[in-house]
Amino acid sequence: MTKDSLRNRRERALGSGAELFYDEPLEIVRGEGAYLFDADGRRYVDMYNNVPAVGHANPAVVKAMAEQQATLNTHSRYLHRGIVTFAERLTALNHDGIESVVFSCSGTEANEVAIQIARLITRKRGLVCTDAAYHGNSEVVDSMSYVGLSPSRSGEVRSFPFPERYRPLKEGLSDEELCDAYLQRVAAAINSLNSDGPGFAALIICSIFANEGVPVVPTGFMHKVTELVHREGGLVIADEVQSGYGRTGLWWGYECLDFRPDIVVTGKPMGNGLPLGATATKKDYIDKFRSDKDYFNTCAATPLQAAVGMAVLDEIERLDLLRNSAEVGARLLNGLRDRLDRYEEVGDARGLGLFLSVEMVRDSLSKEPDRDLALYLSDRLKEKGFLVSYSGKYENVLKIRPPLVFSHADAEGFLVAFDECMEELHA
Amino acid sequence: MTKDSLRNRRERALGSGAELFYDEPLEIVRGEGAYLFDADGRRYVDMYNNVPAVGHANPAVVKAMAEQQATLNTHSRYLHRGIVTFAERLTALNHDGIESVVFSCSGTEANEVAIQIARLITRKRGLVCTDAAYHGNSEVVDSMSYVGLSPSRSGEVRSFPFPERYRPLKEGLSDEELCDAYLQRVAAAINSLNSDGPGFAALIICSIFANEGVPVVPTGFMHKVTELVHREGGLVIADEVQSGYGRTGLWWGYECLDFRPDIVVTGKPMGNGLPLGATATKKDYIDKFRSDKDYFNTCAATPLQAAVGMAVLDEIERLDLLRNSAEVGARLLNGLRDRLDRYEEVGDARGLGLFLSVEMVRDSLSKEPDRDLALYLSDRLKEKGFLVSYSGKYENVLKIRPPLVFSHADAEGFLVAFDECMEELHA
Repeated sequence: MTKDSLRNRRERALGSGAELFYDEPLEIVRGEGAYLFDADGRRYVDMYNNVPAVGHANPAVVKAMAEQQATLNTHSRYLHRGIVTFAERLTALNHDGIESVVFSCSGTEANEVAIQIARLITRKRGLVCTDAAYHGNSEVVDSMSYVGLSPSRSGEVRSFPFPERYRPLKEGLSDEELCDAYLQRVAAAINSLNSDGPGFAALIICSIFANEGVPVVPTGFMHKVTELVHREGGLVIADEVQSGYGRTGLWWGYECLDFRPDIVVTGKPMGNGLPLGATATKKDYIDKFRSDKDYFNTCAATPLQAAVGMAVLDEIERLDLLRNSAEVGARLLNGLRDRLDRYEEVGDARGLGLFLSVEMVRDSLSKEPDRDLALYLSDRLKEKGFLVSYSGKYENVLKIRPPLVFSHADAEGFLVAFDECMEELHA
Repeated sequence: MTKDSLRNRRERALGSGAELFYDEPLEIVRGEGAYLFDADGRRYVDMYNNVPAVGHANPAVVKAMAEQQATLNTHSRYLHRGIVTFAERLTALNHDGIESVVFSCSGTEANEVAIQIARLITRKRGLVCTDAAYHGNSEVVDSMSYVGLSPSRSGEVRSFPFPERYRPLKEGLSDEELCDAYLQRVAAAINSLNSDGPGFAALIICSIFANEGVPVVPTGFMHKVTELVHREGGLVIADEVQSGYGRTGLWWGYECLDFRPDIVVTGKPMGNGLPLGATATKKDYIDKFRSDKDYFNTCAATPLQAAVGMAVLDEIERLDLLRNSAEVGARLLNGLRDRLDRYEEVGDARGLGLFLSVEMVRDSLSKEPDRDLALYLSDRLKEKGFLVSYSGKYENVLKIRPPLVFSHADAEGFLVAFDECMEELHA
């Protein structure tokens, strides 16, 4: 079967518009560590996939998965040591205020639980998010996706411009003044919810503003916004689906941005590809949630999720992936920042650990976003054997987010390929 | 570690009120086929778990899972033959109007997609469900859970009394009159949505009314209600999470109840424990959904879901489980119906394939639901080595819903244990 006929079959079976990456889509058939292989046997360095955090086809994860599925995999209404131990390990990795866990099957479901808890505890319904966030695909969670700053689609959501220094809310402000300017926008969003009826339940943010392009956030913003939210009687939900699990070089994005969320949501990398999400918070909140909602999720909190989830934690520790993320990420970021002076189209390079952003612009002075260039580079880099994508409010930011087993050597190779692309542009 | 200390740890780690079955909960450590084994090595005949449809620890499923996870497991934005083939197989098992699939990670997520599609296609928001339904745990889906007949919690949901012959809406009606009486209640629910603002988007029902206790439905109800829904411009969503995949002896519950839903939702048994859900409908609807919503679900439509999903379909075929479900279910139902005359507390026994309900009542004449007896029997049968649960509007219905590999011999054993329980009661 040719790739074209596969594409036609896919369009019938999954519907037109089921998204495919790249102008000429890839048929990926195998993965290993930080590498993916297409149907022709060509190897690609995977710098996009954050789900297989401990490496594609990680043998320890495969073993744990197979052994548990061959032993027992049931719902959570029997006692099972695995799921209890897994929950204990997850909470122990978080700050003291995070005591108990509700497991689910995706980041979307975990955010649903977080929102339901926040609404239950505060007895209010309003949610505040950024203008360029993405938190998942259920109707409630999707109402916070890429809302912009216009009046929200849902009467229960308000947005504020995500905090950043590259295209700051106002020019010429000190770091502290800029921080205050963003805080005022959050306060305005909360006030709008309070005056319009739904009241204020929670601020929900990705701890490193991943979909916003991993901006450099004005110093102290997250700490101060947490204080503001608490003063207003709301809860802070940290969506750690992308920022957690060692991605930044620390366990959690909130450690990098120096704040203590009330509720921590995890997903993507937890199961290295097995659907698995979790919502963790104070035991008191979870007790109230369980007694009020009678929450049950058939394929969640299972022995399979526990075994695979713990194998992933073990592999992160055994392979020292927090250190790898910090070190390889830092050196690659340095390399990218060297390109700021070399190419006027590279407006900014920034990031935390192995989540890096390269801001493509018409020129460094205007900072005008160049979405077409980001698309072009993503395609051209793919041809050269390196898989990245693009994101950000203007979709002009190269998104670099490899499995955490990504190496210095592959980072060096990427910089060579990136330079080739940029030199082709100027040739 | 004792069972008590495990229970205490569980309460801290998962929160108080994380549900456990049975007065004295079971610590299950192993499963095989239709059997579960506790920490003391005691064997139980599993007559509750519908997720491991092709048997606990099914070796073919384990093999497919391990091989695929060891080969490739990525998101769905690369071409992959497995996921396309799996979608094609799923649609081929359905009626002609079911052409394309959106995969997700749970029945809840699949119902979310169905509702989003219905709202998009009809440009209305109102939903009609039964008074004792359960469709999942997201905020939108949960707004249709066990709503009763009182004004709905959400302004966008209306309920109607689920159709049944055991406690009919009105006594003394012919089958046809009773059918019409229920249809009038559905029409009233739709009218209420139309006159109150949200308009009517969809009727969502479990095709066999599983949570309602698998009632005997007045003849032709589902066919007629589908006509009514279509006349009113709405869509029929069949939640086949419990009724599908051979549970009834046919592939789909809607084949048993003789209607053609517009949207088919599947979940639980699809992955034999791997989180996996699907929403299938006309390609045209899915195209519109994909172009409007840009739906993406990271751990769904993956090579792992496809490989495991197809292994489950293969095992259903290889083990002839539709026939087993029909034959073992029919013989067990006959056995249970023999008990109607023998014990006045057995008010009714009914079901389809391997989804059976035994209605426990104070006495056969009053039909007064006896929830306590259902609870007692569930616990006592567990002590005798048979796992069942209870459900229904009054929680008085013994729920029998074993893995589809359940045998005649185990069904016979259950009847013996059931008789022992009943004789103990009368001793």
